Amino acid sequence: MRTVIYAGSFDPITFGHLDVAQRAAKLFDRVVVAVAQNDGKTPLFTVPERVKLVAQAIRHIPNAKADSFSGLLANYVTKCRAQAVVRGLRAVSDFEFEFQLALMNRKLNDKFETILLMPKDTYTFLSSRMVKEIASLGGDVHSFVPPHVQRALRRKLAGRQS
Amino acid sequence: MRTVIYAGSFDPITFGHLDVAQRAAKLFDRVVVAVAQNDGKTPLFTVPERVKLVAQAIRHIPNAKADSFSGLLANYVTKCRAQAVVRGLRAVSDFEFEFQLALMNRKLNDKFETILLMPKDTYTFLSSRMVKEIASLGGDVHSFVPPHVQRALRRKLAGRQS
Amino acid sequence: MRTVIYAGSFDPITFGHLDVAQRAAKLFDRVVVAVAQNDGKTPLFTVPERVKLVAQAIRHIPNAKADSFSGLLANYVTKCRAQAVVRGLRAVSDFEFEFQLALMNRKLNDKFETILLMPKDTYTFLSSRMVKEIASLGGDVHSFVPPHVQRALRRKLAGRQS
Amino acid sequence: MRTVIYAGSFDPITFGHLDVAQRAAKLFDRVVVAVAQNDGKTPLFTVPERVKLVAQAIRHIPNAKADSFSGLLANYVTKCRAQAVVRGLRAVSDFEFEFQLALMNRKLNDKFETILLMPKDTYTFLSSRMVKEIASLGGDVHSFVPPHVQRALRRKLAGRQS
Amino acid sequence: MRTVIYAGSFDPITFGHLDVAQRAAKLFDRVVVAVAQNDGKTPLFTVPERVKLVAQAIRHIPNAKADSFSGLLANYVTKCRAQAVVRGLRAVSDFEFEFQLALMNRKLNDKFETILLMPKDTYTFLSSRMVKEIASLGGDVHSFVPPHVQRALRRKLAGRQS
Amino acid sequence: MRTVIYAGSFDPITFGHLDVAQRAAKLFDRVVVAVAQNDGKTPLFTVPERVKLVAQAIRHIPNAKADSFSGLLANYVTKCRAQAVVRGLRAVSDFEFEFQLALMNRKLNDKFETILLMPKDTYTFLSSRMVKEIASLGGDVHSFVPPHVQRALRRKLAGRQS
Repeated sequence: MRTVIYAGSFDPITFGHLDVAQRAAKLFDRVVVAVAQNDGKTPLFTVPERVKLVAQAIRHIPNAKADSFSGLLANYVTKCRAQAVVRGLRAVSDFEFEFQLALMNRKLNDKFETILLMPKDTYTFLSSRMVKEIASLGGDVHSFVPPHVQRALRRKLAGRQS
Repeated sequence: MRTVIYAGSFDPITFGHLDVAQRAAKLFDRVVVAVAQNDGKTPLFTVPERVKLVAQAIRHIPNAKADSFSGLLANYVTKCRAQAVVRGLRAVSDFEFEFQLALMNRKLNDKFETILLMPKDTYTFLSSRMVKEIASLGGDVHSFVPPHVQRALRRKLAGRQS
Repeated sequence: MRTVIYAGSFDPITFGHLDVAQRAAKLFDRVVVAVAQNDGKTPLFTVPERVKLVAQAIRHIPNAKADSFSGLLANYVTKCRAQAVVRGLRAVSDFEFEFQLALMNRKLNDKFETILLMPKDTYTFLSSRMVKEIASLGGDVHSFVPPHVQRALRRKLAGRQS
Repeated sequence: MRTVIYAGSFDPITFGHLDVAQRAAKLFDRVVVAVAQNDGKTPLFTVPERVKLVAQAIRHIPNAKADSFSGLLANYVTKCRAQAVVRGLRAVSDFEFEFQLALMNRKLNDKFETILLMPKDTYTFLSSRMVKEIASLGGDVHSFVPPHVQRALRRKLAGRQS
Repeated sequence: MRTVIYAGSFDPITFGHLDVAQRAAKLFDRVVVAVAQNDGKTPLFTVPERVKLVAQAIRHIPNAKADSFSGLLANYVTKCRAQAVVRGLRAVSDFEFEFQLALMNRKLNDKFETILLMPKDTYTFLSSRMVKEIASLGGDVHSFVPPHVQRALRRKLAGRQS
Repeated sequence: MRTVIYAGSFDPITFGHLDVAQRAAKLFDRVVVAVAQNDGKTPLFTVPERVKLVAQAIRHIPNAKADSFSGLLANYVTKCRAQAVVRGLRAVSDFEFEFQLALMNRKLNDKFETILLMPKDTYTFLSSRMVKEIASLGGDVHSFVPPHVQRALRRKLAGRQS
């Protein structure tokens, strides 16, 4: 059985992420969509909130589950007995950072591979940051995120301003 | 009559921005140089200060005016009845972000175009961030910004340090 | 009245080119879609064939016309009394060449601007070269080019192999 | 059982290609290393020669086999009942072409995925073209290709000059 | 006698930086590895700490010395009577910023050159930021930095958490 | 004494090349501007013609001389007892190829460095290919190449067409 990890911030999960998760689920036996705890950044949603949004978004994919991890991705991969880390490519600028990350991960743990998958072309320019910026400016994000994420964004941003 | 919006942070306006505004003014009937209120960033100049610096810099362009906006650019474009948003390209790294922004804007409002114009070659590597960094280190920025912006930078940075 | 030139090889015209021509036609009074005679390259279609394919593809755009030119684009722009050259951006790799071309053109004739427009996102990765390669391998190109171009490709490639 | 195609020119196969094939063989049940017949280009080795060089290079990988194909990759994938096409990334410039290719392939056949894998870092800047150029100038290529490929290069280039 | 400045944040110095310093020391008579005081950023190590870590790392290079500077690099170059500024290239994304920086520096002081050197290929994807991120997550960084830097990282990060 | 090689096609030499040669001449004791014999390409000028055009262009630089070489650059560097190869960066797209070339050269001969220098900003988008294309279309290239190169281009292109 081959397991892959799809790790990211997922702050929040978008249709682009969902598309990558679905593609990975067709290629491998098990996909873990894993929310990373990055203490350095100030996310909009907490880790448990992000895991919950991910879980609801992927509940139609039988061989995918949501999880979170702290510490090194390389250690989490070992713990999950995963063969590879999946990453979605959104646009070209992403690529170099992914490349750098993949090579660093390989130096830390050369037992797993990094696999880059491409989302649907209309999602290649979609990012959580853009979605948050548009939502915070009162824009409609229904073509970028699932309905439950859209509602969560509205609640979170309303709570911030009041 | 065709109106275009030249939107940006303009913190502060540089000779590169001015060059783009002049090029747009030759191609379209009316150009609005619009300072964006980005709450997330911590600008050096306030929005009213930036609008004033822009207004003085473009006063020799008869069909250009300075303004500011908050919220989505897509809504501001509709409000101004503009046909397009003009953006200046400085260097290659810019391009992808512009591309992403343009595609997101199109999804939010497909009634306007995004037009990319190129400044003079000596300005393609000029940025407000660089100008601020050089000025804060005591460097001479007279070849990057108009005299009134240079004076404003000096006053602002002196006020910060005292 | 403002005239812009949309110049290229158009060997053959694709939906991506057509999309850019339509966008330019909304922004300017007159658009000339101009097939360039590049002696160095060995095109699939002759210049008259390419002009004919372009003309048929744009006949629904009232303020656009097809033409061809030899020699420097800078001279052709002057001859057409155009204010600007329009170029469509397909993907990032294009950008630098466009940039270089635009700067060279400016040195040769600084009276016209170069304007970059973006086609629909599903067309940003479409190129004539790809279309020709797929067609020559027997692939279906109906989602990349108009029906009359598809027929022309089939005839041309059949003629080549016999 | 999951089959993936690792398609390319392989003119000739390098240590970078071999590294990617090995990584794919760990992640999937079967890997077909498929030499593409590109009539447009003028390769150094014929298709049968290239298949033979590939076959010898991968004979230590039990679940990998060498093959060749003509026509569309999308059709070959269907014929092999493969789930995905694997591509190796060498350097950044590659990426955009891969991206474009992957998106075009998806439009032609949306039943298979494109998977990007990264070779070992010392191979990220290695290319067949570079190897041929160095070999043709009399340089030593033993750190770039297996010994049997090095011998084949020497014979081929000697034959050319005489 | 030709002196070059190798300026950077060096927060902390990595094997990639060390490799560049060694290459510069072979090409020029004197190399000053100069830690920049960037007030805007929040470094992990103080300037004196970083200078000390640099000094220890380069003590085997007879014609190199560690130093620090504040203010404009252009002024520091003049003060040191240096002919050039050396920069190491890590990956492509670096390049454009280096390019921009080099052109800005040239406008401020056209008497010195900017020289780009490439570290060993296994270091091209190495960065201080990555090293700090991995160390803060409990990862092993001994293949990225010298032992004394590894110890300093451990002490500094332990001090932070307690 | 430190010698550097500035190698390239120089088909023909442009103001951008000349600018790089001058910068190298200030940093090193001796600069050899070396025309590469690339059998694969079909240059406009023969190797002796290109060497002659280079020699005339650099005759005002006392420590620079023109030469040509065939075979591997790595061998030529050894023969000249040079410490480094200098390359000029024109635009971003160049960079990756330079990077790849530099790393390949290092594998072939790790005793010399590759140094990247930047030409004046107005030359960063200048290339021999562009100059030839413009000249062949009857355009004026006096701001891109020295007068004697302009004359040589005119003679060569006239000879071709007759």
